[in-house]
Amino acid sequence: MEQSKRILGLTGDGDDGWGVFYRARALKDAGVPVIELTIGEHDIRTHPSILDAMHSAALAGHTGYASVPGTAKLRDAVASRIETRTGVSTTRNNITITPGGQSALYAAHTATLNPGDIGLICDPYYATYPGTVRGAGGRVVAVPCHPENGFQPQRADLEQAAIGAKTLLVNTPNNPTGAVYSAKTLEMIAEVAQAHDLWVISDEVYDTQIWDGSHLSLRALTGMQDRTLVVGSMSKSHAMTGSRVGWICGPEPVVANLINLSTHTTYGVPGYIQDAAHFALDQGQALEDEVAHPFARRRQIALDVLKGQNLIKSAPPQGAMYMMLDIRATGLSGTDFANALLDAEQIAVMPGESFGTSAAGHVRVAMTVADDAFELALKKLISFAAHQAQSA
Amino acid sequence: MEQSKRILGLTGDGDDGWGVFYRARALKDAGVPVIELTIGEHDIRTHPSILDAMHSAALAGHTGYASVPGTAKLRDAVASRIETRTGVSTTRNNITITPGGQSALYAAHTATLNPGDIGLICDPYYATYPGTVRGAGGRVVAVPCHPENGFQPQRADLEQAAIGAKTLLVNTPNNPTGAVYSAKTLEMIAEVAQAHDLWVISDEVYDTQIWDGSHLSLRALTGMQDRTLVVGSMSKSHAMTGSRVGWICGPEPVVANLINLSTHTTYGVPGYIQDAAHFALDQGQALEDEVAHPFARRRQIALDVLKGQNLIKSAPPQGAMYMMLDIRATGLSGTDFANALLDAEQIAVMPGESFGTSAAGHVRVAMTVADDAFELALKKLISFAAHQAQSA
Repeated sequence: MEQSKRILGLTGDGDDGWGVFYRARALKDAGVPVIELTIGEHDIRTHPSILDAMHSAALAGHTGYASVPGTAKLRDAVASRIETRTGVSTTRNNITITPGGQSALYAAHTATLNPGDIGLICDPYYATYPGTVRGAGGRVVAVPCHPENGFQPQRADLEQAAIGAKTLLVNTPNNPTGAVYSAKTLEMIAEVAQAHDLWVISDEVYDTQIWDGSHLSLRALTGMQDRTLVVGSMSKSHAMTGSRVGWICGPEPVVANLINLSTHTTYGVPGYIQDAAHFALDQGQALEDEVAHPFARRRQIALDVLKGQNLIKSAPPQGAMYMMLDIRATGLSGTDFANALLDAEQIAVMPGESFGTSAAGHVRVAMTVADDAFELALKKLISFAAHQAQSA
Repeated sequence: MEQSKRILGLTGDGDDGWGVFYRARALKDAGVPVIELTIGEHDIRTHPSILDAMHSAALAGHTGYASVPGTAKLRDAVASRIETRTGVSTTRNNITITPGGQSALYAAHTATLNPGDIGLICDPYYATYPGTVRGAGGRVVAVPCHPENGFQPQRADLEQAAIGAKTLLVNTPNNPTGAVYSAKTLEMIAEVAQAHDLWVISDEVYDTQIWDGSHLSLRALTGMQDRTLVVGSMSKSHAMTGSRVGWICGPEPVVANLINLSTHTTYGVPGYIQDAAHFALDQGQALEDEVAHPFARRRQIALDVLKGQNLIKSAPPQGAMYMMLDIRATGLSGTDFANALLDAEQIAVMPGESFGTSAAGHVRVAMTVADDAFELALKKLISFAAHQAQSA
């Protein structure tokens, strides 16, 4: 039986650079004490008060079909939060609740791409981005974002890629690089998007994790409100990754159609999870800071550890829970370095090559283990790199 | 800004016959005591023991990203349940967990339809079916299932529609008609599917609600295992509609690709919901019977009430939570009857025309209100019909 071209072509050949990750998981399952600095998962769990709010809502009877667009209460809370943070007038009619950020990314591309249309992504990119564009029927074109520019896209590269394109997916604060796009970068993006009539899908799920500079939403820039779909989520900001609750914020006519799409693709998000998300947002800044704080602390640990050497270059991450280490001085590719490090030290990091071509010769370190283990792992990684450089 | 053709063309023009439903909701919101016999939502809530299992799992830390295919535990439980019920050897590799049955329907069509391919649905059909096929890029062709055949598809109709088609969506026990397809009907479907090389997407979410005859899964028929994707869900069987947890059971190579699709469209189902679903399945038949029983009871009430008259014809529903009433003797269309009934008696039912063309002149009654209210509403409906027939 023949499957659809779309599902067969969702991901490319090979392991997409995730071989190290799966090897590490297999070792760990076999009892080897691997330190995993691979994925974007907090080392804390969802706060019990949020879980209690969820349970109360469920016991109170919010277990039937929830309203497909999202509950009025949660849509209002998300709209109000966005309006406060961006200054852009936002109502519940600009918001639809989705089962997580990934679902929002997929829906946003489905709403804007016709089969064969070009969808742009910035390289390095989060693992699911190419398949999300392809899943919506689009063709992926990558905009290179080089390490020497702090992984921020440049006008010439974007303008070249934008010819004939329909959408541009932007992620700031950025996974995997830790870059926070500057106002200058974002203004450039807004200009090119308008010149080439691009939809911008702005993945802002790390907007509460800023270590340097400040987060600016593309939707807030002049002329961008009608062409920007902002993707948000409770996953990173409130350590609710597993709860799969996020949203799209955009122009009313698109949101109305996105709701219709949800009716056919997901049929909404559990009401008790929406109530829990509402409770969590209602806790305000304090809870968000509590969730973000460990990454700020570990970032500082990393900067201190890295200060003592010159081999590994790294721009200090400006946001999110990751940092990119430039290991080109070892003479190894990111993939070879990561595999060798796993074998020698039982430390798992992601090869830069997992995220496209622009971060080749880098490894991504997720700051998602306890401070002590994190510091020790980084020190071992540096010693290992030094050893590799000497024997090269 | 131009949206995609797919999202713009998801649903047809007009209200698709849902005007009565929305009018009833508006009246109810305005304080009018409307009796809603419209949608497939239990009048009980999810059992507290299931919610307690969910809360325990969440507090125990199952709040991070769950495995995208579903937890091994839940996939095993679903596989074992299917193997027991159908006799077909089934392992976790045949199962992927999805956020509800609707999401499973969408994924199954996305896995099998190329843009422009014909997807067959049986008419009368559940409201989201046409948009699900269109959302996956397909063209909808309806197979008429006439009331005089108990709303079961006939060979000639199916064979004609199958020419050049790629998929066939089957739903038994059936929403909206309450039909349970006979072994003869299912064998005919299997033959035509094999003759025309169709994928069969078999929506079996009502398989625990059988009042007459027995449920046979299309996957269990000779030659069907490699071409059938079965959609299941905890919604109807365990009154967990709002929890959005379901599955697809199919051939391993398709399931592997469906998991890859999930990575890009949903990124899995909350772990604590999967644990709750596992707990619920683990309760076995007793809980399923408890959830199904009110509908069996109300079906009998309806049959008793209908016995006293000859105006409204109705084949006794064989399964699911609905019955179709043939109101053609009133001289009204289903839509006109439903609107007039809402105005005169504040009773809301769904026009048969909401579900395609084959159930024109019928109304669907959902058996989802308390017995007393249900009985009274049916009696009023019959009196109303008699009055309409006299004045016609």
